[in-house]
Formats: sequence, C-alpha cells, structure tokens
Amino acid sequence: MIPNDPIEHLITLLSRLPGLGRRSARRAVLRMLMDPAERMLPLADALTAAAAAVRPCETCGNLDAHSPCAICSDRHRDRKLVCVVEGVADLWALERAHAHRGTYHVLGGLLSALGGTGPDDLSVTPLLRRIEAEHIEEVILALPATVDGATTAHYLTDRLKPTGTTVTRLAQGVPIGGALDVLDDGTLAAAFKARRPL
Amino acid sequence: MIPNDPIEHLITLLSRLPGLGRRSARRAVLRMLMDPAERMLPLADALTAAAAAVRPCETCGNLDAHSPCAICSDRHRDRKLVCVVEGVADLWALERAHAHRGTYHVLGGLLSALGGTGPDDLSVTPLLRRIEAEHIEEVILALPATVDGATTAHYLTDRLKPTGTTVTRLAQGVPIGGALDVLDDGTLAAAFKARRPL
Repeated sequence: MIPNDPIEHLITLLSRLPGLGRRSARRAVLRMLMDPAERMLPLADALTAAAAAVRPCETCGNLDAHSPCAICSDRHRDRKLVCVVEGVADLWALERAHAHRGTYHVLGGLLSALGGTGPDDLSVTPLLRRIEAEHIEEVILALPATVDGATTAHYLTDRLKPTGTTVTRLAQGVPIGGALDVLDDGTLAAAFKARRPL
Repeated sequence: MIPNDPIEHLITLLSRLPGLGRRSARRAVLRMLMDPAERMLPLADALTAAAAAVRPCETCGNLDAHSPCAICSDRHRDRKLVCVVEGVADLWALERAHAHRGTYHVLGGLLSALGGTGPDDLSVTPLLRRIEAEHIEEVILALPATVDGATTAHYLTDRLKPTGTTVTRLAQGVPIGGALDVLDDGTLAAAFKARRPL
C-alpha cells in the first residue's frame, strides 16, 4: 500500500544487489528521493553508460570500456608474464594491491564437480592459444586456496605442461598482520610445512 | 588504471548510498556487469521513473507517485487521527507495523539547537492549518525518544494547545522481546516509572 509502485519497484531491484538487503535498499531509495536530480538521475545515467560501454576484453576477459582492455593495451606491462584468475573481482583485487606487472587471463570460473563446471566452461583453450601466440614465459595461477581452486590449478598445470611454459602459484601461509592463534588449522599447517630459511 | 572510467564512476556513485561502502559497491557493479541487460538497464529505468514520478504529498509530506498520496486519498483511513513523524522513513516503518489507521504528517526534521533547526524549518504551520481545516481530533506524536525528539514534542504540544485537539505520544518502555538486563538505564527507569496495573 504505502511505498507504491515506482518506489517499491526500485527498492526491489536495489535489494537484489549483493550486500544490500531490503532494509538498506529502502534507506538508499529514501536518501536518493530527497534529491532526485542530484542522486538518482546521475546514477541512472552511469548505469546506462556502463551497460552500453563495458564489455569483456577479447584477450584476457577483464571488463572494460575498451577491448583490448587498458591492461592488455598498456605497453609497460610485461606480456611474457600472465596471471590466471578465477574472475574479474580477483583481477581488480590484484591490481589494487599492485601485485602484478604482467597481464591477466580470466578463467571465468573454477572446475567444480558439484557445481557441474567442466574444462569447456572455462577459458582454457584461449589461454593455451595465448601461450603459443605470445610466447608467454610464466603463467602465475592466482586461484583461491579451496578444493575447487586446487583442482583447477592441478588441471591447468597438466594442460600447460606440453607448452613448456613455467607454471607457478601464489604462496600460501600466514596472512600479513595475522595472529597465529586465530588462524585456521589448515593455513597454520600449510605455513609450517612451507617454512622458509631466514 | 584498472576499472576505468564508466565502471569507476558507477562504483563511486553507488558507494555514496547509505549502507554501501566502496567494497560492496564494487561487488554490486561486478555482479551487474555479468548481465547488463537484465540487471543494469532495468535499474537505470527504475531510477529515472522514480525520479520523474515521486514527489512529496502536498497534504502530509509522504513520498509517493501521486499527490495527495495513497494514504491521504484512502477513504478507509480515519482523517480525524493524525500521526506526526519526523520523516518519511518513520512513516513507512509505522505502515509496515500496521500501527496506525489514520493519516500522517511529516515534520521534515526535529528541532535542534546544535543542528540549527528551528520551528520555521519544520512543517508546523501546515499542521496547524490541517488541524483547523480537517477538524482533527487527535494528534499522535510519533517522534524519536531522543533529546531533540522530546524538545520537538514539547514545542508541538505548546503550539497545538490553542487548537483544543488531543495530543498524545507513543508509549515508552521495554521493547517487545527485550531482555531487561541488556536494556539501557534510561529505558529501564522510564519503563519502571510508567508501570501499569495488570
């Protein structure tokens, strides 16, 4: 009855976004309705513009307004060094950390027996093609430290072996700033096992 | 560098909404970019539609696609019973609770010496005019139990006295389902003082 059609509809759409429940969607809509010209219309325009402009990079799978994306077309990037990630979120996280000076390859998922994701659902063939065409020297597997991540890493290592390229993976261990006593047993055991000389 | 213009711009706008930080805005944008036609364009349309249609009700101040709003034009509502609220969020909350069968009046704020909000910043004169014109019998002050809420309630009681209308306020006490030992002292003392015979 109360928040009638256009408002209710907007709240429903907003509340479907990850991280926003119905309560926070309602607050956001109310805030925006206080100043529609300043808050709602620019957001509507930004959504329309992004939907029209953004597409996956045909080389690496990153999302960008251009294809090839800004990273793939950056001459200062080392093209011999490709970092393989599950999705674009991981790519952005690595960029924010300034962790990688090469390029990326977005797999688009992980192998998962339960989820029914097989090798053909992932961008594996394009990766193999890139390795051949661009003479890639090292492939860094930046995959999550989960069962599916490990399965995918294992599978990729096998598939990449014939290319002769070096395959590495991220180090596992104690997170920076992490206290030992709150760490899960798996991480602690892995960090202990992979201890390094000082 | 990475999430370039249209994406970064959208994340910035989204992260300004209450309840969304930069991190969750980023997640929301990534999710939407997976399916722009299904997720971004409908949201853009809903924002544009709401910005165009929604306005404050000229009678009570509620936000709605029509003025007078759905509540003010509902014949089944008791027009002799007006509930005064600070803002539209409170009005919506009372409606969700099915707490009130009358109409509303949105003050648009509370008196606040610190915030510099005086009587002229609130919708007080329109309220007095409504009381005269619509022969309102009871005004229920549903204002927050804060210093500013109490100040505003006190001020309104004074201003409404000459009209002869009955002025009431919400009961204060132990929240339903609330344990006593975690309740703040003020609430506990108020509930004790306002105890009622069984």
